[in-house]
Amino acid sequence: MSLTLGLYQGPPVMGDPEAGLARLQRQLTAAAAAGARMLVAPELFLPGYNRPDLHAALAQPMGGSWCRRLAGMAREAGCGLTVGWAERDGDAVYNAATAFDRDGTILGHYRKIQLFGPMEAASFAPGGSYCLFDLDGVKTGLMICYDVEFAPHVRALAERGARLLLVPTANPAGFEHVSTAFVPARAAEMDLTIAYANFCGDEAGLAYGGRSLIAGPDAQVIAAAGRAECLLVATLGPEPDRALRSTQLADYRKV
Amino acid sequence: MSLTLGLYQGPPVMGDPEAGLARLQRQLTAAAAAGARMLVAPELFLPGYNRPDLHAALAQPMGGSWCRRLAGMAREAGCGLTVGWAERDGDAVYNAATAFDRDGTILGHYRKIQLFGPMEAASFAPGGSYCLFDLDGVKTGLMICYDVEFAPHVRALAERGARLLLVPTANPAGFEHVSTAFVPARAAEMDLTIAYANFCGDEAGLAYGGRSLIAGPDAQVIAAAGRAECLLVATLGPEPDRALRSTQLADYRKV
Repeated sequence: MSLTLGLYQGPPVMGDPEAGLARLQRQLTAAAAAGARMLVAPELFLPGYNRPDLHAALAQPMGGSWCRRLAGMAREAGCGLTVGWAERDGDAVYNAATAFDRDGTILGHYRKIQLFGPMEAASFAPGGSYCLFDLDGVKTGLMICYDVEFAPHVRALAERGARLLLVPTANPAGFEHVSTAFVPARAAEMDLTIAYANFCGDEAGLAYGGRSLIAGPDAQVIAAAGRAECLLVATLGPEPDRALRSTQLADYRKV
Repeated sequence: MSLTLGLYQGPPVMGDPEAGLARLQRQLTAAAAAGARMLVAPELFLPGYNRPDLHAALAQPMGGSWCRRLAGMAREAGCGLTVGWAERDGDAVYNAATAFDRDGTILGHYRKIQLFGPMEAASFAPGGSYCLFDLDGVKTGLMICYDVEFAPHVRALAERGARLLLVPTANPAGFEHVSTAFVPARAAEMDLTIAYANFCGDEAGLAYGGRSLIAGPDAQVIAAAGRAECLLVATLGPEPDRALRSTQLADYRKV
């Protein structure tokens, strides 16, 4: 695996999706210039995570103007883009993420399965299926935030062949252990790489913890952000020597 | 302090300064697109750190073609560049670093004081003075690699008002504690921010440890790389609340 990934940790768009799109475009251009194949941005970047007042009001359908513009930005930059947004499908609103390829086509679309807390439960319907796609020969899965904390979901994606997980997130301050412990642990347990892109700053009374990171299958941190705005562009691999490692996926015995 | 800094961790140029200049230019363009005010690159990036066969042979004077081209690249990108290179001054060769401003002018030039090990002692004459300059109102110092491990040197720069240290380095694998312990410790001790830009990969039998990072005055990691090629672009500050902190610089009592 010699993919180069970008991770964008930034503040919320504060009710201004246009400003958010402009910021994403700038970061996408920068990531592309540094050689990134794909840029990962936070959960519900459009129209905001801690804005239940906006979720149903601004949610857009697949193929709507956000999708078209995000696809166009990826095509123009020549770099893929994975980002979270509020998706409307009939009466339902989903906490969704889409991976746009560098030609603007959609590689994968995912709806968050593990909704977190009462706000999310009130705003969104849960997703019901995994999402996997090929990224230059690397089988890649999408998850959103809380999803990745559940070992069974990561295991399920690994069983389907995932080597890389792209995870937009909105992780609050006080939960930094998700970055420092859970994400590296999940990566090492299931022998894959996880790119976890969080917000920084505050949104409607919620302080985010930052600490976006890419963790490799040996639990090593490939790149990591602190608490402030940050773009990370890092080259993955080479992968650890399998002959010297146990893999829980192969070794697991039901009893 | 709301500076945005870039840090480039990359492999050595392997005896090909032209390839190195082209790579720097690409990273500088990317850092600028992400809003960086200054990009920091490794020690002796030109013509290579572990290449004593090339140091005297390829060392250039101040104002030579490397300087002119690096200045031009910074000007073209609209982003400052701090990078290490071998400087010839008469019969002497120095392990030097220069900070070029985004208009191509020279903000500061520094010669490494603490030469490390027999190779450096054979290749280079030691520098004899500190280097400080103003970067958008932030007093900024240059150091190179081993220099930053010496608390008295960091203290001396802090006493002269430094709030930020830019440190090109060439730190081998096995010395990761410099990144994980020394650099955050120095930053917190002297209440400043340190940007420490290392190589990754191998050069003439020497394996580098990567782990480039920016550490803040509270010892927090603002952005960090793992072992592979990586561009980090991160926004510094706001600074910690001084009222709640002790500062060794002010509190130190000679006995």
